[in-house]
Amino acid sequence: MFKTIEWKNNSIVMIDQRLLPTEEIYRTYTDFLDVAEAIREMVVRGAPAIGVAAAMGVALGALQINAKGRKEFLKKFEKICKVMAGTRPTAVNLFWAIERMKRVAKNNPKLPVEALQQRLVQEAKIIYTEDIKINKQMGKFGSKLIKNKATILTHCNAGALATAGYGTALGVIRAAVEDGKKIKVFADETRPFLQGSRLTAWELMKDGIDTTLITDNMAGYMMKKGLIDVVVVGADRIAANGDTANKIGTYSVAVLAKEHKIPFYIAAPISTIDLKIKNGEKIPIEERDIREVTHIKDTPIAPAGIKVRNPAFDVTPNRLVTAIITERGIAKKSYEKSLKRLVKEDNARG
Amino acid sequence: MFKTIEWKNNSIVMIDQRLLPTEEIYRTYTDFLDVAEAIREMVVRGAPAIGVAAAMGVALGALQINAKGRKEFLKKFEKICKVMAGTRPTAVNLFWAIERMKRVAKNNPKLPVEALQQRLVQEAKIIYTEDIKINKQMGKFGSKLIKNKATILTHCNAGALATAGYGTALGVIRAAVEDGKKIKVFADETRPFLQGSRLTAWELMKDGIDTTLITDNMAGYMMKKGLIDVVVVGADRIAANGDTANKIGTYSVAVLAKEHKIPFYIAAPISTIDLKIKNGEKIPIEERDIREVTHIKDTPIAPAGIKVRNPAFDVTPNRLVTAIITERGIAKKSYEKSLKRLVKEDNARG
Repeated sequence: MFKTIEWKNNSIVMIDQRLLPTEEIYRTYTDFLDVAEAIREMVVRGAPAIGVAAAMGVALGALQINAKGRKEFLKKFEKICKVMAGTRPTAVNLFWAIERMKRVAKNNPKLPVEALQQRLVQEAKIIYTEDIKINKQMGKFGSKLIKNKATILTHCNAGALATAGYGTALGVIRAAVEDGKKIKVFADETRPFLQGSRLTAWELMKDGIDTTLITDNMAGYMMKKGLIDVVVVGADRIAANGDTANKIGTYSVAVLAKEHKIPFYIAAPISTIDLKIKNGEKIPIEERDIREVTHIKDTPIAPAGIKVRNPAFDVTPNRLVTAIITERGIAKKSYEKSLKRLVKEDNARG
Repeated sequence: MFKTIEWKNNSIVMIDQRLLPTEEIYRTYTDFLDVAEAIREMVVRGAPAIGVAAAMGVALGALQINAKGRKEFLKKFEKICKVMAGTRPTAVNLFWAIERMKRVAKNNPKLPVEALQQRLVQEAKIIYTEDIKINKQMGKFGSKLIKNKATILTHCNAGALATAGYGTALGVIRAAVEDGKKIKVFADETRPFLQGSRLTAWELMKDGIDTTLITDNMAGYMMKKGLIDVVVVGADRIAANGDTANKIGTYSVAVLAKEHKIPFYIAAPISTIDLKIKNGEKIPIEERDIREVTHIKDTPIAPAGIKVRNPAFDVTPNRLVTAIITERGIAKKSYEKSLKRLVKEDNARG
């Protein structure tokens, strides 16, 4: 089995997700600046995996710091956190993980520099381990929503590759399979970065889960033919009212699900919920390089000089979301109340 | 300016649409079997262009026939028509054009073989010339539905490349521009064959029309942002009740248009209307080679061995269609009546 990301001998090892499924290449990072670049360039992607990578990146940066005392260390550490926070704007897990690392530094004022460095590395490892545990717990809750013999449509990759392991949306699918249910999956290819065809199809095939690949614009056709029972996707940021930012195209899938009266579920950890953001309109949406749209690797598929839009995410309004599956349980409408309750519970325990 | 298809010195010249926009290659066909293969392989595509290519292919085949008399000629001619009809199943213009060629043979029982061959070539040329005239007329009607400063979303390519020239949906856009309106276009890239990015973006850029390319799954986002005023697409077959088969993904665009209260127009010639088919469920939907989904040219973008669906068309139910623009005028609900009226008028004149 593959590993999405791993802390190994004071370095970070990541599978290069830009090259899958044709090449399975692991890259080793020893400089936090390269980790930031890897996040930006989508060597690693998926909100929870970005969170883990950012935490490990910050820990790596902390190890790199040469400082005479705590004050100088913290000043340099702050800069590292800032670089890491500047990589991608939409997935809130990035900021959540960095804040958590900052809290460790703040909450251990007595630790000498070297011990603090080790404590930060430890925290990044904890975030990693927790993420897998969280996903398995989420899967247990989510599986209850999935009937035996269900065909599930998913968009983008919210799988093991988008997390430390197991996955969020694909975690729900894996849990349903582990519960003995016969499950079929339709995977949207998810243009432009093709996370569906390159990543979801790849990891579900490895698990022997019955998966059919379609282009994004076929989802409506499959729904109309009665071939889809339920939609499960991940999330990059969930506003306080349940409006959910996820990979571009998710909103269209949600509208189609509503049209066909198909349940539409979000699976995401508590760390994806951003109570500071009131509704989806306030979530920053990243626009990426137009080359993602105009080229496949080095092959041009559009005329040179054409105008292009490339928003990487869209927002699905809460009214289209049937339920939100988290590791603390399932949130239903009204999300203002249910999400707040779940987040507070988390903070009380954490 | 380019020519999609042309009859030239007893051969057919076509621009190879598989290679656009990076290569502008014209291919010359002197054997009707190669024309059939070119239709199948989508060297030429788009319902009206397929009709013209089929007519010219049948004419070319007629020229190739060595026959002692009319009876033998007709027998061989019938076989050629059958080959041509077996190329693609969904676009009815193919069958319409072949039937029209057959009628010429039938309605000229006195013509000697050589004269009949010339008459068939003439008929194919008439179909070609008529098609351009029809599209311009359709554009005039369609332009009335387009407001000044409108932004139009289109899917696939219903342009000059999908017809003998000028286009159906893009003909409406061209006519609106010629009427002095400031028009902006969003073009869905239209996976898997990328007719939007490779063909629509290319031909609209050549015309200097303000065009923005998006992936199919961005259409909902753009609509939600209020950036789309109207949708205009072509059609491959329109059933008697107005249900419309068009390129895969059209149905999803229509559902999204309804959700955002955006008018959704079909532009198609009378020859696309198939009164023999009562509703959309009866329209045969072609499934094409899965390699169109799993590869871009020779680059694999999905894991080897993955299951794939590749329906080339979907059906948009009449309730989602605001109006159907034809060369005889604009059909509105109920389509059973309005389409029948327009088709009969056509037959009366034709």
